Amino acid sequence: MQKGRLEAFSDGVIAVIITIMVLEMKVPHGTDPAALAPLIPVFVSYVLSYVYVGIYWNNHHHMLHATKTVNGPILWANLHLLFWLSLIPFVTGWMGENHFAEIPVALYGAVLLMSAISYYVLSRCLIKHDGRESRLGSAVGKDFKGRISVVIYVVAILLSFVDRWIALGLYFSVALLWFVPDRRIERMREP
Amino acid sequence: MQKGRLEAFSDGVIAVIITIMVLEMKVPHGTDPAALAPLIPVFVSYVLSYVYVGIYWNNHHHMLHATKTVNGPILWANLHLLFWLSLIPFVTGWMGENHFAEIPVALYGAVLLMSAISYYVLSRCLIKHDGRESRLGSAVGKDFKGRISVVIYVVAILLSFVDRWIALGLYFSVALLWFVPDRRIERMREP
Amino acid sequence: MQKGRLEAFSDGVIAVIITIMVLEMKVPHGTDPAALAPLIPVFVSYVLSYVYVGIYWNNHHHMLHATKTVNGPILWANLHLLFWLSLIPFVTGWMGENHFAEIPVALYGAVLLMSAISYYVLSRCLIKHDGRESRLGSAVGKDFKGRISVVIYVVAILLSFVDRWIALGLYFSVALLWFVPDRRIERMREP
Amino acid sequence: MQKGRLEAFSDGVIAVIITIMVLEMKVPHGTDPAALAPLIPVFVSYVLSYVYVGIYWNNHHHMLHATKTVNGPILWANLHLLFWLSLIPFVTGWMGENHFAEIPVALYGAVLLMSAISYYVLSRCLIKHDGRESRLGSAVGKDFKGRISVVIYVVAILLSFVDRWIALGLYFSVALLWFVPDRRIERMREP
Repeated sequence: MQKGRLEAFSDGVIAVIITIMVLEMKVPHGTDPAALAPLIPVFVSYVLSYVYVGIYWNNHHHMLHATKTVNGPILWANLHLLFWLSLIPFVTGWMGENHFAEIPVALYGAVLLMSAISYYVLSRCLIKHDGRESRLGSAVGKDFKGRISVVIYVVAILLSFVDRWIALGLYFSVALLWFVPDRRIERMREP
Repeated sequence: MQKGRLEAFSDGVIAVIITIMVLEMKVPHGTDPAALAPLIPVFVSYVLSYVYVGIYWNNHHHMLHATKTVNGPILWANLHLLFWLSLIPFVTGWMGENHFAEIPVALYGAVLLMSAISYYVLSRCLIKHDGRESRLGSAVGKDFKGRISVVIYVVAILLSFVDRWIALGLYFSVALLWFVPDRRIERMREP
Repeated sequence: MQKGRLEAFSDGVIAVIITIMVLEMKVPHGTDPAALAPLIPVFVSYVLSYVYVGIYWNNHHHMLHATKTVNGPILWANLHLLFWLSLIPFVTGWMGENHFAEIPVALYGAVLLMSAISYYVLSRCLIKHDGRESRLGSAVGKDFKGRISVVIYVVAILLSFVDRWIALGLYFSVALLWFVPDRRIERMREP
Repeated sequence: MQKGRLEAFSDGVIAVIITIMVLEMKVPHGTDPAALAPLIPVFVSYVLSYVYVGIYWNNHHHMLHATKTVNGPILWANLHLLFWLSLIPFVTGWMGENHFAEIPVALYGAVLLMSAISYYVLSRCLIKHDGRESRLGSAVGKDFKGRISVVIYVVAILLSFVDRWIALGLYFSVALLWFVPDRRIERMREP
């Protein structure tokens, strides 16, 4: 089975996710700068989520670039990843409108955690399909960055009840960690 | 006529459908877990509909993979299927916000029923175009799973006025039944 | 310049237009059939607009299938067509929510009229680029169906102030007229 | 790395942006022409933004047509451009609903300015990747039109506090300036 439609469908879903998030920034009624003030946390949340969804699109792009064909389990692992990504606009809106209150911040982390786990599952399905000896398999290997992200998300979710700003700082840190596309896959492609 | 744009357009419409459903989960105003409680039925409805739309995308993908070209009636049969799928966000929202009341549950089933029928019509148009002796024709054959789904939907719609939880259970059962992509087409593709 | 991205972008825009129209059907609060009653004109409007957008996608598909490359004016003629199509969700919602009042019905016709004119302009740009002797040029020829539609829209807009049901009937008639994909182009493709 | 998915994703995001802008035109409750009157500035804002997003899609199309492969920095420069474009529906709505008040007009210009800068950054990334001696590099050259646009945006933002109609006039002027697709790249493609 060719990967073309899987890529096209994922591009479509991620394009809609990244764009409807901006709908959570409701147009304010006033016209003075003060009218924009309550939107600042909403905007900060939007930027963070935009970067995260951008990272997922980027890495999804890289990972599928290194593969050739797909099968049934891969289709579902991909839909599973898109499911968690589709919840990002909801938790972004909840977190932003409530000025980073504890529980919304924790739930935001939980959605990031589930997205990371489902991305990991998708990568395992792809490697299983391609063979561990394949370019993708040997490149991703133990997936250190994926594992450390999961640990940081769990810590951040727990810490969000102690100090939500630390939790938020950790979310930004993981985003930075992933900002650079996966060198392992990138390196693999250069021979 | 090539099938490329039919696939691309269907991917686009299904991607938008699957993503705008999440807009029905309105961001709550409170920040405590209790604020999320009324969203639980909305979330459960979202998960069910997400799985259904995912199944349709998956099967659509498989079915069109087994075909080569399309014609006018196929374009319209496809638009007809997308029409019923486009109503899923509406009935999902109505069912979820009303905590699975009888009539919304029945209407949800009616949209699933019409989607199944229009999918069946599309498959017949494709087989007619490809020839009953074609790979697709011999693979789909009598389409047992499609017919049993229609029967279950009709039973569920009627039962939703007796006990809506049974109806809902039946919707989940059909989703499970289809979760595995169509073995018949899959088998056919193996040489 | 290849036509691939023009097709992909148009598919994306039309997919979003056809899907966000359904957002105008606001989920009702009650759960009895009476709660759905006010939605009937909204639903009828949705069906009519869905068929129209489907026709435009279908004909756009056929017309671009018969062409090979595109140029700057074609890109803008296409964006111009998409502009008028993008107004269809707005006029659909206005007409449906106001139970087919005179002015919304007339404005709906005006958007259909502008869509038809911009489609005609696009077809002329394509023929000019391809050459009047080309397959597309000789196939479309005088474009009788396009011209008669424009006349009917103008008549319907004027009649909507006399009897809006006649206007609505005319809109449905033109949809029927176009329902069959363009035989001229279809015939042309047969050797 | 092939440019196919970058184009498909950008097409998807721009298609959603251009279409959700129309959602800011809320369906009015009345049915007389007076009910449409408050929508006139919203409509004018929509037209202006539609033309701008259309110009960006057109130029993006041209620029990527002249390139062959992409790399990591190009992916992020492209996401950066899409980020600013994704804010256009928000500022369009704010400006339109407030009948072109000073601060919304200035903020609208700021988003246009950032879009122009991020487009410029993307073009530099593409030229750096392709080589200054490449077709793209020699064609874009000093990018006079890009630089003059940035200057006009800055002037317009400052003037919006003096006379917002002049600012708005300047936004329309830049749109006109870019309306014609980039002759330099177009010319380059001619042998």
